[in-house]
Amino acid sequence: MDLSNKENLVKIVTEIVKRAINEHKDRLVPIGISNRHIHLSKKDLETLFGKRYTLTKIKDLVQPGQFAAKETVKIIGPKGNFEKVRILGPVRDTTQVEVSLADGFKIGIKVPIRESGKIENTPGIILEGPKGKVTKNNGVIAALRHIHIPPEIAKAYGLQDKQMVDVETEGIRKTVFGNVLVRVSDRYSLEMHIDMDEANSSDIKNGDKVRILKNKE
Amino acid sequence: MDLSNKENLVKIVTEIVKRAINEHKDRLVPIGISNRHIHLSKKDLETLFGKRYTLTKIKDLVQPGQFAAKETVKIIGPKGNFEKVRILGPVRDTTQVEVSLADGFKIGIKVPIRESGKIENTPGIILEGPKGKVTKNNGVIAALRHIHIPPEIAKAYGLQDKQMVDVETEGIRKTVFGNVLVRVSDRYSLEMHIDMDEANSSDIKNGDKVRILKNKE
Repeated sequence: MDLSNKENLVKIVTEIVKRAINEHKDRLVPIGISNRHIHLSKKDLETLFGKRYTLTKIKDLVQPGQFAAKETVKIIGPKGNFEKVRILGPVRDTTQVEVSLADGFKIGIKVPIRESGKIENTPGIILEGPKGKVTKNNGVIAALRHIHIPPEIAKAYGLQDKQMVDVETEGIRKTVFGNVLVRVSDRYSLEMHIDMDEANSSDIKNGDKVRILKNKE
Repeated sequence: MDLSNKENLVKIVTEIVKRAINEHKDRLVPIGISNRHIHLSKKDLETLFGKRYTLTKIKDLVQPGQFAAKETVKIIGPKGNFEKVRILGPVRDTTQVEVSLADGFKIGIKVPIRESGKIENTPGIILEGPKGKVTKNNGVIAALRHIHIPPEIAKAYGLQDKQMVDVETEGIRKTVFGNVLVRVSDRYSLEMHIDMDEANSSDIKNGDKVRILKNKE
């Protein structure tokens, strides 16, 4: 296509704008699939890796400031364990282990489905690092599926923080996920987080776009 | 409650009939969760277990005539294997290995989602039994989710053989499964089959009842 031709240029710009408008109308959201991982408190990090230890970033995540660390830990349940569970940084106030329900069955933990951070009355687990072990009395959850959304897109999509929505996928295993939590913050990039069970169940991949359905009234 | 009292008896019967009617109106179906398993041809069974070997039933399945066998096989993919994969009997015309997408990732096989029996152009795998090995050139699938339904219930539910329906689950991970295949036969008992990924994704258990939604027109 000849870009020096004014008519063609108008066509291209119109097409791009149309697509952007449709993306808003359809309320599309790209998928980020979470494998099992762990967030550590500073105290637990130091027990597992040594005094004044700091995490080494190997990859930025989509959510600003969040990263996958070089470091991993072993997590030990009553009936099994997982070696090399990835630590996501930066450190948090509270240690939290996020696994799938399938993971839970393998290591003998009945995992509750919880919003991140809501770890009261959740099962515990043993963590093992190169310099020590930590026995946690709680903190093991399967993450409640959720959408991270910055305020300007939330406004365009007509969504509020803490709202629950239905989200539709396409393809041979097309699925409507109910009870998807909307989380609005200017620290977020637009992304829906699901776990491996949910990704496989709907046969979707990282970056696939899903659609937020109209609210039932 | 005093059953000799006629009035009470009428109440109880009415309640039972009401429930049965509602079950039809709501088009409820009990869930059967399939873990990875294998159906063997007679020829492959004999290669793996020896000439004239026959399977030993340890448990009847919900579908009439189908059973879990005592025997298991090892299945070997390019990147891993699973020991002790349960054989479901009786023997079939064609060997078929049913795994989840998660299983496929673990053993290095990109598993297509297929209706049972439709194994043309599907990946192969190696099977190992106590008496021999078989290299299959195809037959590995993730089962397309489906409902087994006898003709009289299909009629009551207004469903046809080979129809695709949407099915809704309840709970914290409530889900609408799209593209659920309806299979009608007088050899079937009412049951919806899903795999471990789908069960975990929707947090449902064996025997939980799900609802077939109204057809979109």
